[in-house]
Amino acid sequence: VLTPRSGRIVAARKLLRRSARREQGLVLLEGPSAVGAAADAGLIQELYVTADAAERHADLVERIEAAGVRPWFVAPEAAAALSETVTPQGIVAIVPLPQVSLQHALERPALRPAARLVVVLAEARDPGNAGTVIRTADAAGADCVVLAGASVDPWSGKCVRASAGSLLHLPVVDGVGVEETITAVRAAGCRALAADGHAEAGLYDLAVTDVLRGDHAWVFGNEAHGLSSDVLRTVDSAVSVPVYGRAESLNLASAAAVCLYESARVAGGPSGRGWDT
Amino acid sequence: VLTPRSGRIVAARKLLRRSARREQGLVLLEGPSAVGAAADAGLIQELYVTADAAERHADLVERIEAAGVRPWFVAPEAAAALSETVTPQGIVAIVPLPQVSLQHALERPALRPAARLVVVLAEARDPGNAGTVIRTADAAGADCVVLAGASVDPWSGKCVRASAGSLLHLPVVDGVGVEETITAVRAAGCRALAADGHAEAGLYDLAVTDVLRGDHAWVFGNEAHGLSSDVLRTVDSAVSVPVYGRAESLNLASAAAVCLYESARVAGGPSGRGWDT
Repeated sequence: VLTPRSGRIVAARKLLRRSARREQGLVLLEGPSAVGAAADAGLIQELYVTADAAERHADLVERIEAAGVRPWFVAPEAAAALSETVTPQGIVAIVPLPQVSLQHALERPALRPAARLVVVLAEARDPGNAGTVIRTADAAGADCVVLAGASVDPWSGKCVRASAGSLLHLPVVDGVGVEETITAVRAAGCRALAADGHAEAGLYDLAVTDVLRGDHAWVFGNEAHGLSSDVLRTVDSAVSVPVYGRAESLNLASAAAVCLYESARVAGGPSGRGWDT
Repeated sequence: VLTPRSGRIVAARKLLRRSARREQGLVLLEGPSAVGAAADAGLIQELYVTADAAERHADLVERIEAAGVRPWFVAPEAAAALSETVTPQGIVAIVPLPQVSLQHALERPALRPAARLVVVLAEARDPGNAGTVIRTADAAGADCVVLAGASVDPWSGKCVRASAGSLLHLPVVDGVGVEETITAVRAAGCRALAADGHAEAGLYDLAVTDVLRGDHAWVFGNEAHGLSSDVLRTVDSAVSVPVYGRAESLNLASAAAVCLYESARVAGGPSGRGWDT
Protein backbone atom coordinates (compact mmCIF):
# COMPACT_ATOMS: atom_id res chain seq x y z
CA VAL A 1 0.00 0.00 0.00
CA LEU A 2 1.52 3.29 -1.13
CA THR A 3 1.78 6.25 1.26
CA PRO A 4 2.16 9.98 0.48
CA ARG A 5 5.94 9.47 0.75
CA SER A 6 6.16 6.56 -1.71
CA GLY A 7 8.21 7.49 -4.76
CA ARG A 8 5.31 6.92 -7.18
CA ILE A 9 2.97 9.17 -5.21
CA VAL A 10 5.61 11.90 -4.89
CA ALA A 11 6.17 11.71 -8.66
CA ALA A 12 2.44 11.61 -9.51
CA ARG A 13 1.77 14.53 -7.17
CA LYS A 14 3.90 16.75 -9.42
CA LEU A 15 1.14 16.44 -12.05
CA LEU A 16 -1.05 18.69 -9.88
CA ARG A 17 1.01 21.52 -11.44
CA ARG A 18 0.14 22.71 -14.94
CA SER A 19 3.81 23.06 -15.92
CA ALA A 20 4.57 19.45 -14.98
CA ARG A 21 1.52 18.26 -16.96
CA ARG A 22 2.79 20.07 -20.08
CA GLU A 23 6.35 18.86 -19.56
CA GLN A 24 5.49 15.22 -19.03
CA GLY A 25 2.42 15.10 -21.28
CA LEU A 26 0.44 13.39 -18.52
CA VAL A 27 -2.58 14.35 -16.44
CA LEU A 28 -4.25 13.11 -13.24
CA LEU A 29 -7.94 12.26 -13.39
CA GLU A 30 -9.79 11.88 -10.11
CA GLY A 31 -13.13 10.27 -9.42
CA PRO A 32 -15.17 7.45 -10.93
CA SER A 33 -16.71 9.46 -13.82
CA ALA A 34 -13.40 10.71 -15.17
CA VAL A 35 -11.58 7.42 -14.53
CA GLY A 36 -14.48 5.54 -16.14
CA ALA A 37 -14.33 7.76 -19.25
CA ALA A 38 -10.55 7.19 -19.42
CA ALA A 39 -11.07 3.43 -19.11
CA ASP A 40 -13.65 3.52 -21.93
CA ALA A 41 -11.08 5.30 -24.09
CA GLY A 42 -8.33 2.85 -23.17
CA LEU A 43 -6.15 5.70 -21.92
CA ILE A 44 -5.21 4.62 -18.39
CA GLN A 45 -1.49 4.29 -17.73
CA GLU A 46 -1.58 4.06 -13.94
CA LEU A 47 -4.41 3.60 -11.47
CA TYR A 48 -4.24 4.51 -7.77
CA VAL A 49 -7.08 3.35 -5.58
CA THR A 50 -7.85 3.09 -1.87
CA ALA A 51 -9.27 -0.13 -0.42
CA ASP A 52 -12.59 1.65 0.20
CA ALA A 53 -12.84 3.04 -3.32
CA ALA A 54 -11.83 -0.33 -4.82
CA GLU A 55 -14.83 -1.83 -3.06
CA ARG A 56 -17.20 1.03 -4.00
CA HIS A 57 -16.10 0.91 -7.65
CA ALA A 58 -15.32 -2.81 -7.93
CA ASP A 59 -16.73 -3.11 -11.48
CA LEU A 60 -14.65 -0.22 -12.74
CA VAL A 61 -11.42 -1.44 -11.12
CA GLU A 62 -12.03 -4.94 -12.49
CA ARG A 63 -12.60 -3.57 -15.98
CA ILE A 64 -9.34 -1.63 -15.83
CA GLU A 65 -7.45 -4.68 -14.55
CA ALA A 66 -8.96 -6.80 -17.34
CA ALA A 67 -7.52 -4.27 -19.81
CA GLY A 68 -4.04 -5.00 -18.43
CA VAL A 69 -3.49 -2.16 -15.95
CA ARG A 70 -2.58 -3.37 -12.48
CA PRO A 71 -3.93 -0.94 -9.86
CA TRP A 72 -1.73 0.43 -7.09
CA PHE A 73 -3.42 0.27 -3.73
CA VAL A 74 -2.87 3.47 -1.78
CA ALA A 75 -3.54 4.78 1.70
CA PRO A 76 -6.35 7.37 1.95
CA GLU A 77 -3.67 10.01 2.69
CA ALA A 78 -1.92 9.14 -0.59
CA ALA A 79 -5.20 9.47 -2.53
CA ALA A 80 -5.75 12.82 -0.80
CA ALA A 81 -2.24 13.91 -1.81
CA LEU A 82 -3.24 13.43 -5.48
CA SER A 83 -6.51 15.31 -5.08
CA GLU A 84 -7.32 19.00 -5.40
CA THR A 85 -10.82 18.65 -4.06
CA VAL A 86 -12.13 18.89 -0.51
CA THR A 87 -13.53 15.37 -0.53
CA PRO A 88 -10.97 13.07 -2.23
CA GLN A 89 -12.69 10.24 -4.03
CA GLY A 90 -10.03 7.57 -3.53
CA ILE A 91 -9.59 6.71 -7.22
CA VAL A 92 -7.09 8.50 -9.44
CA ALA A 93 -5.69 7.62 -12.88
CA ILE A 94 -2.76 8.91 -14.89
CA VAL A 95 -3.53 9.33 -18.60
CA PRO A 96 -1.69 10.97 -21.49
CA LEU A 97 -2.55 14.67 -21.88
CA PRO A 98 -4.81 14.75 -24.95
CA GLN A 99 -3.16 17.14 -27.38
CA VAL A 100 -5.52 18.56 -29.97
CA SER A 101 -4.70 21.59 -32.09
CA LEU A 102 -7.42 24.15 -32.71
CA GLN A 103 -7.06 23.52 -36.44
CA HIS A 104 -7.62 19.81 -35.99
CA ALA A 105 -10.56 20.29 -33.62
CA LEU A 106 -12.24 22.56 -36.18
CA GLU A 107 -11.84 20.17 -39.11
CA ARG A 108 -15.11 18.89 -40.41
CA PRO A 109 -15.15 15.10 -39.91
CA ALA A 110 -15.24 12.97 -43.07
CA LEU A 111 -18.76 11.80 -42.26
CA ARG A 112 -19.79 15.31 -41.50
CA PRO A 113 -22.50 16.17 -38.97
CA ALA A 114 -25.36 18.25 -40.36
CA ALA A 115 -24.29 21.35 -38.46
CA ARG A 116 -21.25 22.02 -36.35
CA LEU A 117 -21.47 23.43 -32.82
CA VAL A 118 -18.27 24.89 -31.33
CA VAL A 119 -17.99 26.27 -27.79
CA VAL A 120 -15.46 28.98 -26.90
CA LEU A 121 -14.86 30.07 -23.30
CA ALA A 122 -12.99 33.38 -23.23
CA GLU A 123 -11.01 34.12 -20.06
CA ALA A 124 -13.05 31.69 -17.94
CA ARG A 125 -11.47 31.79 -14.50
CA ASP A 126 -13.56 29.41 -12.42
CA PRO A 127 -12.56 25.75 -12.96
CA GLY A 128 -15.93 24.50 -11.69
CA ASN A 129 -17.76 26.64 -14.25
CA ALA A 130 -15.43 25.56 -17.05
CA GLY A 131 -15.88 21.88 -16.21
CA THR A 132 -19.65 22.28 -16.03
CA VAL A 133 -19.72 23.96 -19.45
CA ILE A 134 -17.58 21.13 -20.92
CA ARG A 135 -20.08 18.61 -19.52
CA THR A 136 -23.03 20.56 -20.94
CA ALA A 137 -21.29 20.98 -24.32
CA ASP A 138 -20.80 17.21 -24.47
CA ALA A 139 -24.46 16.60 -23.56
CA ALA A 140 -25.67 19.09 -26.18
CA GLY A 141 -23.64 17.31 -28.85
CA ALA A 142 -20.99 20.01 -29.39
CA ASP A 143 -18.00 19.21 -31.62
CA CYS A 144 -15.31 20.79 -29.44
CA VAL A 145 -14.64 23.24 -26.61
CA VAL A 146 -11.91 25.89 -26.68
CA LEU A 147 -10.69 27.38 -23.38
CA ALA A 148 -9.29 30.53 -24.97
CA GLY A 149 -7.05 33.28 -23.67
CA ALA A 150 -6.18 33.24 -20.00
CA SER A 151 -8.85 30.66 -19.15
CA VAL A 152 -8.30 28.06 -16.44
CA ASP A 153 -6.43 24.88 -17.31
CA PRO A 154 -9.03 22.26 -18.29
CA TRP A 155 -6.90 19.59 -16.58
CA SER A 156 -6.98 21.15 -13.11
CA GLY A 157 -8.61 18.89 -10.52
CA LYS A 158 -11.75 20.97 -10.04
CA CYS A 159 -12.39 21.26 -13.77
CA VAL A 160 -11.87 17.52 -14.30
CA ARG A 161 -14.29 16.78 -11.50
CA ALA A 162 -16.99 19.20 -12.72
CA SER A 163 -16.72 17.85 -16.27
CA ALA A 164 -17.72 14.37 -14.99
CA GLY A 165 -15.71 12.61 -17.68
CA SER A 166 -16.76 14.84 -20.59
CA LEU A 167 -13.19 16.20 -20.91
CA LEU A 168 -12.40 12.86 -22.55
CA HIS A 169 -15.53 12.76 -24.73
CA LEU A 170 -14.83 15.68 -27.04
CA PRO A 171 -11.73 17.65 -28.09
CA VAL A 172 -10.86 20.38 -25.55
CA VAL A 173 -8.30 22.90 -26.81
CA ASP A 174 -6.46 25.48 -24.72
CA GLY A 175 -3.56 27.89 -25.02
CA VAL A 176 -4.93 29.92 -27.97
CA GLY A 177 -5.80 33.63 -27.74
CA VAL A 178 -9.46 34.66 -27.81
CA GLU A 179 -9.36 36.70 -31.00
CA GLU A 180 -7.15 34.14 -32.74
CA THR A 181 -9.70 31.48 -31.80
CA ILE A 182 -12.62 33.47 -33.18
CA THR A 183 -10.72 34.15 -36.41
CA ALA A 184 -9.97 30.43 -36.82
CA VAL A 185 -13.54 29.44 -36.02
CA ARG A 186 -14.88 31.85 -38.64
CA ALA A 187 -12.30 30.74 -41.18
CA ALA A 188 -13.54 27.19 -40.60
CA GLY A 189 -16.99 28.31 -41.71
CA CYS A 190 -18.72 28.77 -38.36
CA ARG A 191 -20.73 31.88 -37.52
CA ALA A 192 -19.39 33.26 -34.23
CA LEU A 193 -22.11 34.23 -31.74
CA ALA A 194 -21.16 36.06 -28.54
CA ALA A 195 -23.40 35.48 -25.54
CA ASP A 196 -23.76 38.98 -24.13
CA GLY A 197 -26.43 40.10 -21.69
CA HIS A 198 -26.54 43.55 -23.28
CA ALA A 199 -27.04 42.40 -26.88
CA GLU A 200 -30.17 43.56 -28.66
CA ALA A 201 -30.75 40.29 -30.47
CA GLY A 202 -32.47 37.76 -28.20
CA LEU A 203 -31.78 34.04 -28.22
CA TYR A 204 -35.26 33.24 -29.51
CA ASP A 205 -35.34 35.86 -32.30
CA LEU A 206 -36.05 34.30 -35.68
CA ALA A 207 -32.82 35.61 -37.18
CA VAL A 208 -30.82 33.94 -34.41
CA THR A 209 -32.74 30.68 -34.87
CA ASP A 210 -31.72 30.76 -38.54
CA VAL A 211 -28.06 31.09 -37.59
CA LEU A 212 -28.37 28.17 -35.13
CA ARG A 213 -29.46 25.93 -38.03
CA GLY A 214 -25.99 26.22 -39.60
CA ASP A 215 -22.41 25.74 -38.40
CA HIS A 216 -21.83 28.10 -35.49
CA ALA A 217 -19.74 28.80 -32.42
CA TRP A 218 -20.93 30.20 -29.10
CA VAL A 219 -18.45 32.51 -27.34
CA PHE A 220 -18.92 32.96 -23.57
CA GLY A 221 -17.06 35.58 -21.55
CA ASN A 222 -15.51 35.86 -18.13
CA GLU A 223 -17.74 35.27 -15.07
CA ALA A 224 -17.27 38.80 -13.73
CA HIS A 225 -16.54 40.93 -16.77
CA GLY A 226 -18.25 39.22 -19.71
CA LEU A 227 -16.68 39.79 -23.14
CA SER A 228 -14.44 42.73 -23.96
CA SER A 229 -15.51 45.21 -26.63
CA ASP A 230 -12.53 44.05 -28.71
CA VAL A 231 -13.86 40.51 -28.70
CA LEU A 232 -17.41 41.70 -29.39
CA ARG A 233 -16.10 43.42 -32.53
CA THR A 234 -14.66 40.16 -33.90
CA VAL A 235 -17.83 38.03 -33.72
CA ASP A 236 -20.61 37.87 -36.30
CA SER A 237 -23.38 38.72 -33.83
CA ALA A 238 -24.00 39.20 -30.14
CA VAL A 239 -27.01 37.47 -28.62
CA SER A 240 -28.60 37.84 -25.18
CA VAL A 241 -30.41 35.22 -23.15
CA PRO A 242 -33.60 37.13 -22.30
CA VAL A 243 -34.25 37.82 -18.62
CA TYR A 244 -37.97 37.71 -17.86
CA GLY A 245 -37.80 38.28 -14.11
CA ARG A 246 -35.74 40.64 -11.96
CA ALA A 247 -32.37 38.84 -12.03
CA GLU A 248 -29.58 40.98 -13.45
CA SER A 249 -28.15 38.08 -15.40
CA LEU A 250 -27.58 34.34 -15.45
CA ASN A 251 -24.39 32.72 -14.25
CA LEU A 252 -21.95 31.57 -16.90
CA ALA A 253 -22.70 27.85 -16.79
CA SER A 254 -26.49 28.41 -16.76
CA ALA A 255 -26.34 30.83 -19.70
CA ALA A 256 -24.19 28.33 -21.61
CA ALA A 257 -26.67 25.53 -20.88
CA VAL A 258 -29.56 27.62 -22.24
CA CYS A 259 -27.66 28.64 -25.41
CA LEU A 260 -26.16 25.23 -26.19
CA TYR A 261 -29.45 23.43 -25.75
CA GLU A 262 -31.22 26.00 -27.90
CA SER A 263 -28.64 25.13 -30.59
CA ALA A 264 -29.38 21.43 -30.07
CA ARG A 265 -33.14 21.99 -30.14
CA VAL A 266 -33.01 24.03 -33.33
CA ALA A 267 -30.75 21.48 -35.02
CA GLY A 268 -33.51 18.97 -34.36
CA GLY A 269 -31.77 16.77 -31.85
CA PRO A 270 -29.79 13.61 -32.52
CA SER A 271 -30.94 13.25 -36.11
CA GLY A 272 -30.28 16.89 -36.91
CA ARG A 273 -26.87 16.88 -35.28
CA GLY A 274 -26.15 13.32 -36.43
CA TRP A 275 -24.34 11.93 -39.45
CA ASP A 276 -25.27 12.30 -43.08
CA THR A 277 -25.94 8.98 -44.73
CA VAL B 1 -14.81 50.33 13.74
CA LEU B 2 -16.29 47.04 14.97
CA THR B 3 -14.08 44.00 15.53
CA PRO B 4 -15.01 40.31 15.68
CA ARG B 5 -15.36 40.71 19.45
CA SER B 6 -17.73 43.68 19.35
CA GLY B 7 -21.12 42.82 20.84
CA ARG B 8 -22.99 43.54 17.59
CA ILE B 9 -20.73 41.27 15.55
CA VAL B 10 -20.92 38.47 18.14
CA ALA B 11 -24.73 38.77 18.06
CA ALA B 12 -24.94 38.99 14.24
CA ARG B 13 -22.62 36.00 13.89
CA LYS B 14 -25.24 33.81 15.58
CA LEU B 15 -27.36 34.27 12.42
CA LEU B 16 -24.94 32.01 10.55
CA ARG B 17 -26.90 29.19 12.24
CA ARG B 18 -30.24 28.12 10.77
CA SER B 19 -31.80 27.71 14.22
CA ALA B 20 -30.91 31.28 15.21
CA ARG B 21 -32.32 32.60 11.92
CA ARG B 22 -35.65 30.87 12.61
CA GLU B 23 -35.71 31.97 16.24
CA GLN B 24 -34.94 35.62 15.58
CA GLY B 25 -36.64 35.88 12.17
CA LEU B 26 -33.53 37.55 10.73
CA VAL B 27 -30.99 36.58 8.08
CA LEU B 28 -27.53 37.76 7.01
CA LEU B 29 -27.04 38.71 3.37
CA GLU B 30 -23.49 39.02 2.10
CA GLY B 31 -22.20 40.68 -1.03
CA PRO B 32 -23.26 43.61 -3.22
CA SER B 33 -25.91 41.72 -5.27
CA ALA B 34 -27.83 40.43 -2.28
CA VAL B 35 -27.43 43.67 -0.28
CA GLY B 36 -28.47 45.66 -3.37
CA ALA B 37 -31.61 43.54 -3.80
CA ALA B 38 -32.41 44.02 -0.09
CA ALA B 39 -31.91 47.78 -0.44
CA ASP B 40 -34.28 47.85 -3.46
CA ALA B 41 -36.88 46.06 -1.35
CA GLY B 42 -36.37 48.43 1.61
CA LEU B 43 -35.57 45.48 3.87
CA ILE B 44 -32.22 46.42 5.42
CA GLN B 45 -32.20 46.65 9.21
CA GLU B 46 -28.43 46.77 9.77
CA LEU B 47 -25.50 47.20 7.40
CA TYR B 48 -21.90 46.18 8.16
CA VAL B 49 -19.25 47.33 5.75
CA THR B 50 -15.43 47.48 5.62
CA ALA B 51 -13.69 50.70 4.55
CA ASP B 52 -12.58 48.98 1.33
CA ALA B 53 -16.04 47.72 0.47
CA ALA B 54 -17.59 51.10 1.30
CA GLU B 55 -15.31 52.61 -1.34
CA ARG B 56 -15.94 49.85 -3.89
CA HIS B 57 -19.70 50.04 -3.41
CA ALA B 58 -20.01 53.76 -2.58
CA ASP B 59 -23.26 54.18 -4.56
CA LEU B 60 -24.94 51.29 -2.81
CA VAL B 61 -23.85 52.41 0.68
CA GLU B 62 -25.00 55.95 -0.04
CA ARG B 63 -28.37 54.71 -1.25
CA ILE B 64 -28.84 52.68 1.95
CA GLU B 65 -27.82 55.66 4.11
CA ALA B 66 -30.24 57.90 2.23
CA ALA B 67 -32.97 55.42 3.16
CA GLY B 68 -32.20 56.03 6.83
CA VAL B 69 -29.93 53.08 7.72
CA ARG B 70 -26.62 54.16 9.24
CA PRO B 71 -23.89 51.68 8.26
CA TRP B 72 -21.56 50.18 10.86
CA PHE B 73 -17.94 50.27 9.76
CA VAL B 74 -16.22 46.99 10.53
CA ALA B 75 -12.70 45.58 10.41
CA PRO B 76 -12.06 43.04 7.60
CA GLU B 77 -11.86 40.33 10.31
CA ALA B 78 -15.35 41.27 11.50
CA ALA B 79 -16.73 41.08 7.94
CA ALA B 80 -15.03 37.68 7.59
CA ALA B 81 -16.64 36.54 10.86
CA LEU B 82 -20.07 37.18 9.27
CA SER B 83 -19.18 35.36 6.06
CA GLU B 84 -19.47 31.69 5.13
CA THR B 85 -17.54 32.08 1.88
CA VAL B 86 -13.83 31.74 1.21
CA THR B 87 -13.51 35.30 -0.08
CA PRO B 88 -15.54 37.60 2.21
CA GLN B 89 -16.95 40.54 0.29
CA GLY B 90 -16.86 43.12 3.09
CA ILE B 91 -20.52 44.09 2.92
CA VAL B 92 -23.21 42.31 4.97
CA ALA B 93 -26.79 43.27 5.80
CA ILE B 94 -29.30 41.97 8.31
CA VAL B 95 -32.83 41.69 6.91
CA PRO B 96 -36.03 40.10 8.20
CA LEU B 97 -36.38 36.44 7.19
CA PRO B 98 -39.03 36.50 4.44
CA GLN B 99 -41.77 34.13 5.56
CA VAL B 100 -43.96 32.86 2.76
CA SER B 101 -46.28 29.89 3.13
CA LEU B 102 -46.50 27.42 0.26
CA GLN B 103 -50.23 28.14 0.00
CA HIS B 104 -49.58 31.85 -0.36
CA ALA B 105 -46.76 31.37 -2.88
CA LEU B 106 -49.06 29.23 -5.04
CA GLU B 107 -51.96 31.69 -5.07
CA ARG B 108 -52.68 33.07 -8.48
CA PRO B 109 -52.13 36.84 -8.32
CA ALA B 110 -55.21 39.01 -8.90
CA LEU B 111 -53.78 40.25 -12.22
CA ARG B 112 -52.89 36.73 -13.18
CA PRO B 113 -49.93 35.90 -15.40
CA ALA B 114 -50.81 33.98 -18.54
CA ALA B 115 -49.21 30.79 -17.25
CA ARG B 116 -47.64 29.98 -13.91
CA LEU B 117 -44.18 28.48 -13.59
CA VAL B 118 -43.29 26.90 -10.23
CA VAL B 119 -39.89 25.39 -9.38
CA VAL B 120 -39.51 22.59 -6.83
CA LEU B 121 -36.11 21.37 -5.65
CA ALA B 122 -36.46 18.02 -3.90
CA GLU B 123 -33.70 17.15 -1.45
CA ALA B 124 -31.19 19.55 -3.02
CA ARG B 125 -28.09 19.32 -0.86
CA ASP B 126 -25.61 21.68 -2.49
CA PRO B 127 -26.21 25.32 -1.49
CA GLY B 128 -24.36 26.62 -4.57
CA ASN B 129 -26.62 24.59 -6.87
CA ALA B 130 -29.74 25.70 -5.00
CA GLY B 131 -28.73 29.38 -5.20
CA THR B 132 -27.93 29.07 -8.90
CA VAL B 133 -31.33 27.49 -9.60
CA ILE B 134 -33.06 30.30 -7.66
CA ARG B 135 -31.19 32.84 -9.80
CA THR B 136 -32.14 31.02 -13.02
CA ALA B 137 -35.77 30.65 -11.88
CA ASP B 138 -35.90 34.42 -11.32
CA ALA B 139 -34.36 35.09 -14.75
CA ALA B 140 -36.80 32.71 -16.47
CA GLY B 141 -39.74 34.52 -14.87
CA ALA B 142 -40.79 31.77 -12.44
CA ASP B 143 -43.46 32.56 -9.84
CA CYS B 144 -41.83 30.85 -6.87
CA VAL B 145 -39.24 28.29 -5.80
CA VAL B 146 -39.83 25.59 -3.20
CA LEU B 147 -36.83 23.97 -1.48
CA ALA B 148 -38.71 20.84 -0.48
CA GLY B 149 -37.90 17.99 1.88
CA ALA B 150 -34.43 17.90 3.38
CA SER B 151 -33.07 20.52 0.96
CA VAL B 152 -30.42 23.03 2.05
CA ASP B 153 -31.51 26.18 3.84
CA PRO B 154 -31.96 28.91 1.19
CA TRP B 155 -30.56 31.47 3.67
CA SER B 156 -27.18 29.80 4.12
CA GLY B 157 -24.29 32.01 3.01
CA LYS B 158 -23.34 29.99 -0.06
CA CYS B 159 -26.91 29.83 -1.34
CA VAL B 160 -27.42 33.57 -0.79
CA ARG B 161 -24.23 34.29 -2.71
CA ALA B 162 -25.02 31.97 -5.63
CA SER B 163 -28.53 33.42 -5.91
CA ALA B 164 -27.02 36.89 -6.60
CA GLY B 165 -29.97 38.69 -5.01
CA SER B 166 -32.70 36.57 -6.61
CA LEU B 167 -33.67 35.13 -3.20
CA LEU B 168 -35.33 38.51 -2.59
CA HIS B 169 -36.94 38.74 -6.03
CA LEU B 170 -39.40 35.87 -5.83
CA PRO B 171 -41.01 33.86 -3.01
CA VAL B 172 -38.76 31.04 -1.81
CA VAL B 173 -40.49 28.49 0.43
CA ASP B 174 -38.82 25.81 2.52
CA GLY B 175 -39.66 23.32 5.24
CA VAL B 176 -42.40 21.44 3.34
CA GLY B 177 -42.14 17.74 2.42
CA VAL B 178 -41.61 16.81 -1.24
CA GLU B 179 -44.83 14.86 -1.74
CA GLU B 180 -46.84 17.42 0.23
CA THR B 181 -45.42 20.12 -2.05
CA ILE B 182 -46.33 18.24 -5.23
CA THR B 183 -49.85 17.61 -3.93
CA ALA B 184 -50.28 21.32 -3.15
CA VAL B 185 -48.86 22.37 -6.51
CA ARG B 186 -51.27 20.09 -8.34
CA ALA B 187 -54.20 21.21 -6.18
CA ALA B 188 -53.31 24.77 -7.22
CA GLY B 189 -53.85 23.77 -10.84
CA CYS B 190 -50.25 23.26 -11.99
CA ARG B 191 -49.16 20.17 -13.91
CA ALA B 192 -46.19 18.65 -12.07
CA LEU B 193 -43.29 17.66 -14.36
CA ALA B 194 -40.36 15.72 -12.94
CA ALA B 195 -36.99 16.26 -14.61
CA ASP B 196 -35.64 12.73 -14.83
CA GLY B 197 -32.82 11.59 -17.09
CA HIS B 198 -34.45 8.19 -17.56
CA ALA B 199 -37.87 9.47 -18.63
CA GLU B 200 -39.11 8.44 -22.06
CA ALA B 201 -40.72 11.78 -22.85
CA GLY B 202 -38.12 14.27 -24.06
CA LEU B 203 -38.16 18.00 -23.28
CA TYR B 204 -38.82 18.91 -26.92
CA ASP B 205 -41.61 16.39 -27.54
CA LEU B 206 -44.78 18.06 -28.77
CA ALA B 207 -46.84 16.70 -25.87
CA VAL B 208 -44.42 18.26 -23.40
CA THR B 209 -44.46 21.58 -25.26
CA ASP B 210 -48.25 21.58 -24.88
CA VAL B 211 -47.95 21.15 -21.12
CA LEU B 212 -45.40 23.97 -20.92
CA ARG B 213 -48.00 26.34 -22.42
CA GLY B 214 -50.15 26.01 -19.28
CA ASP B 215 -49.57 26.37 -15.54
CA HIS B 216 -46.87 23.91 -14.54
CA ALA B 217 -44.22 23.06 -11.97
CA TRP B 218 -40.78 21.58 -12.62
CA VAL B 219 -39.54 19.16 -9.96
CA PHE B 220 -35.76 18.60 -9.78
CA GLY B 221 -34.17 15.89 -7.68
CA ASN B 222 -31.08 15.46 -5.57
CA GLU B 223 -27.67 15.99 -7.24
CA ALA B 224 -26.52 12.42 -6.66
CA HIS B 225 -29.69 10.35 -6.53
CA GLY B 226 -32.25 12.21 -8.65
CA LEU B 227 -35.91 11.72 -7.71
CA SER B 228 -37.17 8.73 -5.73
CA SER B 229 -39.68 6.39 -7.32
CA ASP B 230 -42.22 7.52 -4.70
CA VAL B 231 -41.88 11.09 -5.90
CA LEU B 232 -42.00 10.03 -9.55
CA ARG B 233 -45.35 8.37 -8.84
CA THR B 234 -46.86 11.62 -7.55
CA VAL B 235 -46.09 13.82 -10.59
CA ASP B 236 -48.15 14.14 -13.78
CA SER B 237 -45.26 13.28 -16.11
CA ALA B 238 -41.52 12.70 -16.10
CA VAL B 239 -39.46 14.46 -18.75
CA SER B 240 -35.81 14.01 -19.74
CA VAL B 241 -33.43 16.61 -21.10
CA PRO B 242 -32.08 14.76 -24.15
CA VAL B 243 -28.37 13.98 -24.19
CA TYR B 244 -26.97 14.15 -27.72
CA GLY B 245 -23.32 13.48 -26.91
CA ARG B 246 -21.62 11.02 -24.59
CA ALA B 247 -22.22 12.73 -21.23
CA GLU B 248 -24.14 10.57 -18.82
CA SER B 249 -26.24 13.47 -17.64
CA LEU B 250 -26.29 17.20 -16.96
CA ASN B 251 -25.61 18.68 -13.57
CA LEU B 252 -28.63 19.85 -11.58
CA ALA B 253 -28.30 23.60 -12.19
CA SER B 254 -27.64 23.13 -15.94
CA ALA B 255 -30.60 20.79 -16.37
CA ALA B 256 -32.79 23.29 -14.50
CA ALA B 257 -31.57 26.13 -16.74
CA VAL B 258 -32.48 24.17 -19.87
CA CYS B 259 -35.94 23.19 -18.58
CA LEU B 260 -36.89 26.59 -17.13
CA TYR B 261 -35.83 28.46 -20.26
CA GLU B 262 -37.72 26.00 -22.43
CA SER B 263 -40.78 26.89 -20.33
CA ALA B 264 -40.05 30.58 -20.85
CA ARG B 265 -39.49 30.13 -24.59
CA VAL B 266 -42.71 28.18 -25.07
CA ALA B 267 -44.69 30.73 -23.04
CA GLY B 268 -43.51 33.30 -25.58
CA GLY B 269 -41.33 35.42 -23.36
CA PRO B 270 -42.29 38.47 -21.35
CA SER B 271 -45.60 38.99 -23.14
CA GLY B 272 -46.55 35.34 -22.78
CA ARG B 273 -45.54 35.19 -19.14
CA GLY B 274 -46.75 38.75 -18.51
CA TRP B 275 -50.04 40.11 -17.24
CA ASP B 276 -53.46 39.78 -18.85
CA THR B 277 -54.97 43.13 -19.78
